[in-house]
Amino acid sequence: MIVHLNKSITKEQAQLLAEKYQSVLFENGKLVLVTPSKLKTADDELQKAADEIFVADSDIQLASKNYIGTKREVKFGDITIGGSTNNTVVITGPCSVESEEQIESAAQLCVELGVKVLRAGAYKPRTSPYTFQGLGLEGLKLLDKMRSKYGLQIITEVRDSTHVDEIIEYADIIQIGAKSMYDHGILRKCGKTRKPILLKRGFGTTLQEFAQSAEFILSGGNPNVILCERGIRTFETKTRFTLDLCGAAWLKQNTNLPIILDPSHAIGYAYGVADLSRACVAMGIDGLLIESHPNPKVAKSDADQQLNFDEFRNLYASLKTVATAVGYKVV
Amino acid sequence: MIVHLNKSITKEQAQLLAEKYQSVLFENGKLVLVTPSKLKTADDELQKAADEIFVADSDIQLASKNYIGTKREVKFGDITIGGSTNNTVVITGPCSVESEEQIESAAQLCVELGVKVLRAGAYKPRTSPYTFQGLGLEGLKLLDKMRSKYGLQIITEVRDSTHVDEIIEYADIIQIGAKSMYDHGILRKCGKTRKPILLKRGFGTTLQEFAQSAEFILSGGNPNVILCERGIRTFETKTRFTLDLCGAAWLKQNTNLPIILDPSHAIGYAYGVADLSRACVAMGIDGLLIESHPNPKVAKSDADQQLNFDEFRNLYASLKTVATAVGYKVV
Amino acid sequence: MIVHLNKSITKEQAQLLAEKYQSVLFENGKLVLVTPSKLKTADDELQKAADEIFVADSDIQLASKNYIGTKREVKFGDITIGGSTNNTVVITGPCSVESEEQIESAAQLCVELGVKVLRAGAYKPRTSPYTFQGLGLEGLKLLDKMRSKYGLQIITEVRDSTHVDEIIEYADIIQIGAKSMYDHGILRKCGKTRKPILLKRGFGTTLQEFAQSAEFILSGGNPNVILCERGIRTFETKTRFTLDLCGAAWLKQNTNLPIILDPSHAIGYAYGVADLSRACVAMGIDGLLIESHPNPKVAKSDADQQLNFDEFRNLYASLKTVATAVGYKVV
Amino acid sequence: MIVHLNKSITKEQAQLLAEKYQSVLFENGKLVLVTPSKLKTADDELQKAADEIFVADSDIQLASKNYIGTKREVKFGDITIGGSTNNTVVITGPCSVESEEQIESAAQLCVELGVKVLRAGAYKPRTSPYTFQGLGLEGLKLLDKMRSKYGLQIITEVRDSTHVDEIIEYADIIQIGAKSMYDHGILRKCGKTRKPILLKRGFGTTLQEFAQSAEFILSGGNPNVILCERGIRTFETKTRFTLDLCGAAWLKQNTNLPIILDPSHAIGYAYGVADLSRACVAMGIDGLLIESHPNPKVAKSDADQQLNFDEFRNLYASLKTVATAVGYKVV
Repeated sequence: MIVHLNKSITKEQAQLLAEKYQSVLFENGKLVLVTPSKLKTADDELQKAADEIFVADSDIQLASKNYIGTKREVKFGDITIGGSTNNTVVITGPCSVESEEQIESAAQLCVELGVKVLRAGAYKPRTSPYTFQGLGLEGLKLLDKMRSKYGLQIITEVRDSTHVDEIIEYADIIQIGAKSMYDHGILRKCGKTRKPILLKRGFGTTLQEFAQSAEFILSGGNPNVILCERGIRTFETKTRFTLDLCGAAWLKQNTNLPIILDPSHAIGYAYGVADLSRACVAMGIDGLLIESHPNPKVAKSDADQQLNFDEFRNLYASLKTVATAVGYKVV
Repeated sequence: MIVHLNKSITKEQAQLLAEKYQSVLFENGKLVLVTPSKLKTADDELQKAADEIFVADSDIQLASKNYIGTKREVKFGDITIGGSTNNTVVITGPCSVESEEQIESAAQLCVELGVKVLRAGAYKPRTSPYTFQGLGLEGLKLLDKMRSKYGLQIITEVRDSTHVDEIIEYADIIQIGAKSMYDHGILRKCGKTRKPILLKRGFGTTLQEFAQSAEFILSGGNPNVILCERGIRTFETKTRFTLDLCGAAWLKQNTNLPIILDPSHAIGYAYGVADLSRACVAMGIDGLLIESHPNPKVAKSDADQQLNFDEFRNLYASLKTVATAVGYKVV
Repeated sequence: MIVHLNKSITKEQAQLLAEKYQSVLFENGKLVLVTPSKLKTADDELQKAADEIFVADSDIQLASKNYIGTKREVKFGDITIGGSTNNTVVITGPCSVESEEQIESAAQLCVELGVKVLRAGAYKPRTSPYTFQGLGLEGLKLLDKMRSKYGLQIITEVRDSTHVDEIIEYADIIQIGAKSMYDHGILRKCGKTRKPILLKRGFGTTLQEFAQSAEFILSGGNPNVILCERGIRTFETKTRFTLDLCGAAWLKQNTNLPIILDPSHAIGYAYGVADLSRACVAMGIDGLLIESHPNPKVAKSDADQQLNFDEFRNLYASLKTVATAVGYKVV
Repeated sequence: MIVHLNKSITKEQAQLLAEKYQSVLFENGKLVLVTPSKLKTADDELQKAADEIFVADSDIQLASKNYIGTKREVKFGDITIGGSTNNTVVITGPCSVESEEQIESAAQLCVELGVKVLRAGAYKPRTSPYTFQGLGLEGLKLLDKMRSKYGLQIITEVRDSTHVDEIIEYADIIQIGAKSMYDHGILRKCGKTRKPILLKRGFGTTLQEFAQSAEFILSGGNPNVILCERGIRTFETKTRFTLDLCGAAWLKQNTNLPIILDPSHAIGYAYGVADLSRACVAMGIDGLLIESHPNPKVAKSDADQQLNFDEFRNLYASLKTVATAVGYKVV
């Protein structure tokens, strides 16, 4: 149950209510109390304290269409996605920041094409300790430089809670990766900022758990959450993961959060990225993450799935056409 | 290894070779021998008997791009898909034939919109004996009537090998369902006709096994095989299945067979069918199966996922626009 | 709803009731009507016709503990499993009948150890047309010979409905394989015999669907159904499948059918078969299928997973000890 | 490639080698260098620096049987598991520490039965922010009290890297949960202690990734790693997860680490825990985690799957019998 407290309730009173009803309390313009969803009816005390009350089916509460019936807007730089914008933001860049030359080359591609958000990882959540682990803070500083020099927005990933503060400081959009999606340390810190959070679905995570993970951020007080479907793990191993567009349709139908899709990580091979990207855009979505690299063959991570720049140029042009066909606009 | 035998080889000699090399032999213009893929080099005897030899990576042989590098063409009625046509055939109709009135209403919708292929099941592969099992032969006869009256092509499903001959007789395109995909009795009979076969991927079937299943038909001598991805079973149960478009991309890259997608069975709920259908078409595919019903609420099977006629009309118009955006044409 | 009709109801009346209530009717001592499980209350007409009525949660009806609260007994030869026997029948033999010499060697191993049921396939449901497809009828005849000569019970698999009559004739226990588990042609024929049916779970099949598949046989009038869990398909591919012992526990808790486990097909590699077999027996189960071969390296199918005879001898001895530890007895 | 450096190599030289060969360096008696597994042959410089060299198939290196052919020993308190001990340690306790009374009751059950390791969570990795999140540090202090008062070893879970130091301080065995298995912040800290680490497999994690996750700890210098299989996520949802005993067999065959199984979390329902526990023990394993609670119905987390104390007592007695039957001993 979501309870919008009325103005007569002080913060101290609200905290007492939160304890009494085992609820989460946050402030966002007004004081909001979120009780466990098992509570279905408000007693007199809650009724009196409330301006409005929203009863929930499950612990998908703040993210639910039952609470806010339309899609939320999220802004970064001069871009808005969600709401009634019908904007599809295309984000590109390499898997990892590898060197200044490499990331500058990626930044220049963005400028050339009018892409406004650059992606690249500094802290890489690798599955082996014996592979490239990312440049860390040095990588963040290079991304910072690209922002200043080229006026791009930066999205980069937080790997674990030891460096979440750094990422919040350096990024315009904070990406929580598939492997960190349950990390309370990260989620709680991301609830305390107002920067947009791109939350990736864990590859073994149900839609229910995914949306509930967003609740950790939303109930921390940060309304700027974007969901990202990036492929789930299935029995099929010819492709790296299985892009779950049925799941994307479910999220679109049932949640109020903007949705960005990541076909590169899903298929894991460059050959299918163009077709899948067009498929994603044709669904009418809020954004797309596509990995590109000046020279994919020598990439230090995800070499197989990154497009080279010419492949990306061709794809980008076609995405505009497809977006138009479904009443959307690439931004 | 695929061996195109030369004209000097008689059928009897070919049969002896087939036994010697534990191979499958078929005739399609010429005599073709397919050995197990483990055989990687041809000895003198095979070399002498051969016009051409194609070595295979795996038991995906006749369906592989290594054998025929371009997509095969498949024709039914005056429609051609595959090859260099860039045609996307849209097929619609109810899950099951329920009555003459119902199927005629579906046929009339096809005529109204210019849809040329009507789908509906007569033998239903239900998972419970206590639900509607289909009208059987009576259903086939009703479909036959619709073909005569409205000039439509008919696609309907074979459930098991006890009635495969009936289906081959009555259908223009024979559908092998997801649950029957490994049925040797069906596959071998379908290899003996020349009618197009739409082979659906089992929901627990890998891409490798799926394409190998097509080999049973192709090596029976029938080159007219269409693959259909219709959703795989994953841990996610908010939707009925998970449409595997990464898998579709893999099939497009690696096989020479036309591909049709079935978003209705994948998601299992009408709310997402339109978005997913547009996504499918934007991939550049050969066809689309969409379930529609004059009154989905009273449907005897798959009630949740069938579009009503107005929903289908709206969707159909938008599919044409999306197809055009990617250089394809809805037929 | 399961309705035991009273003696005043004739077969003709029962058939009229079956039509009226869209039910399945069978005779097994008495006339039994099974309505769709959606029907939760009996009207006056049904009440009057009934001796007893059992309301079901789902379309798992005849197989449910709600109908028969204890485990059913199934007999073959002089062996009984299920009921209150606490018997664990161990069944072994090669994947396929390959030659008289090979199958006789397997039969002799059974005799040596006191194993009473020999397994081997004659019609193999291979996933490629270019591999060994089984000896067919010739294989069945060899199995028949082993039965006569060595007094063994024979279990062998039906692949599709074209040869189901042959299998019913030659086998003592009819095995329906994982890939044929939805085959109505097979299921309906197996409902008409009284021979025991070992129904394997499809590797992409939910427990609900699996038990419902048994309903096709049970509602045909054959009460002698044994369920076999043999591994499901998951994202893990280091092993061939994933043996679902949680699922076995669920079946034991919720159904009234004996359960046999097949660790050989689950793991797909001989190294783990002994440990897994002991695990299965320690659960307290009704039987175990283990593949063994006189010389696994030259086996024409499933070469990796078959135990050689010495491995099987060692394992068999330890299974008796484990069974005893949990109050069961290997038969 | 694992390189045991010889005594002539100083730490400084070793660090230069580590940089040159992009390797991980740690000290454990001797200096050990682990290169990426792609490096298959040692050049002269490495040859000269090495006492011994072990070439690896994949990035499972320190955990592989190719490196250490027998199972490693891990000790805690006066218990040893692994090596040639054939000990199966049984660990029990509630899901969460809820109160002093509750955890003391669990501790007393351990003392009564001779169970030496008590489990309970203080930081709970819940999937919803609106449920009980654990007592945190207060919970750890209660566990500490139980250790002092009852002489028990304590195992408790680290949820994210913000409190990993606390857990390392308070626990005798540090549990890394399924959702934290990829957390570099946790893994790297656990590599720096010498306390035993129980690493749970992520429910969406392949065996390859799981063992590689252990490499982060092992290559940090901590050899005391125990693997724990606790169920993977599959399409089957009648049970919470699917216990992967095929995977356990693979780990036993291919890694040198002790293995503990957790049937409670796998099935998620108390009804199957006893049968599954006996199955686990019959495999010949190093330990078992079983959730028990003085009153499962009022448990604040995992209420469905915890055994009550009488159920646990009965089970515990039978586990000893099963262990004996396979040549193991419950400790």
